[in-house]
Amino acid sequence: MKAGVLYSGGKDSSLIAIILQRMGLEVELITANFGVYDSWIPASKSASALGFKHRVLKLDKKILKTAVDKILADGFPNRGIDHIHHNVIEKVAEDYSLVADGTRRDDRIPKLKENQIRSFEDRNQVEYVNLQGFGHKTIERFSSKLFEVTREESNRKNNSDYEVEVRCLIDELNGEGKSASIFPQHFQTRVTGWSPKLSSREL
Amino acid sequence: MKAGVLYSGGKDSSLIAIILQRMGLEVELITANFGVYDSWIPASKSASALGFKHRVLKLDKKILKTAVDKILADGFPNRGIDHIHHNVIEKVAEDYSLVADGTRRDDRIPKLKENQIRSFEDRNQVEYVNLQGFGHKTIERFSSKLFEVTREESNRKNNSDYEVEVRCLIDELNGEGKSASIFPQHFQTRVTGWSPKLSSREL
Repeated sequence: MKAGVLYSGGKDSSLIAIILQRMGLEVELITANFGVYDSWIPASKSASALGFKHRVLKLDKKILKTAVDKILADGFPNRGIDHIHHNVIEKVAEDYSLVADGTRRDDRIPKLKENQIRSFEDRNQVEYVNLQGFGHKTIERFSSKLFEVTREESNRKNNSDYEVEVRCLIDELNGEGKSASIFPQHFQTRVTGWSPKLSSREL
Repeated sequence: MKAGVLYSGGKDSSLIAIILQRMGLEVELITANFGVYDSWIPASKSASALGFKHRVLKLDKKILKTAVDKILADGFPNRGIDHIHHNVIEKVAEDYSLVADGTRRDDRIPKLKENQIRSFEDRNQVEYVNLQGFGHKTIERFSSKLFEVTREESNRKNNSDYEVEVRCLIDELNGEGKSASIFPQHFQTRVTGWSPKLSSREL
């Protein structure tokens, strides 16, 4: 029984991966890619630093294009990012009996509603798990204990979120810099390895 | 930093305790009691079988009485059980910096709403964690791997849920058997220890 965890290299997705591993599951980390930009590289480095197997899941660029259309029509990213996430988890469900992501209690997007989770689990005969039971303070607590992290202004080289390829495609279609009006600059935390303060017993 | 986990001896509360312990927290299990009936005994046995420290948290019988009043007025247990749960977590927050319970995704009662969780965390300067990210299939998977369980028709001797003392007080106030019309008979799963199939490495 393998668990497929959607993975960005951030604290949340790293944490759910570790929880599932510590509960005895075989965990593989998965980063979706639409062939527009190699945005999976930071996630792949984080996965490797934590000792997890990492897979890049290649998906049809049309999914990204539809997401971009929604985002440009709306002027903000929510529906488009949700569109991507739904397509990604459906694909992951083909290969894993448990699908997980790092969505936590205080996240808004992407987030599956309860009826969407039920439908996803039933249609695909899989289990879906996330960090919905944990708030940001608890995730911060575990993260600062377990991980070494970097915090930098987000850019396409330090970040494996869906946002990276969305922005690349928006700029490709609408001219360099167009995406900046939709996605504000923000800081990005990335897991670069286990905390050096951890004892070997705690790893 | 100690985590206080509300504990009934069931699979859900056993599982959240183990997750938090495996994430490196010092975990204590807590069962509330209102002095009406020693309903904490089954939970205490389960806790001890899993190797956890267990505490009985004595609470004012008035809380139980108010819950019973609500339940008798409503004809069903939801508001009354919620009333108990809210009072219990507020009390646990006095002694622990993280308060957890085994509420899972498909539970309805007792369940804190998102604004109640935020208010609880902020007022008490604590973290609140539950199993909201996990559905019953995943909990069943982990439980069958980790635990030895018994499944019996629920009665006051095999069960540490709030329901036991609520029923005792209803029957005391309204005559033996009155509570049966409000709480239907159901089956009760209780954790009696670690699964004998677990290797020592997995404990």
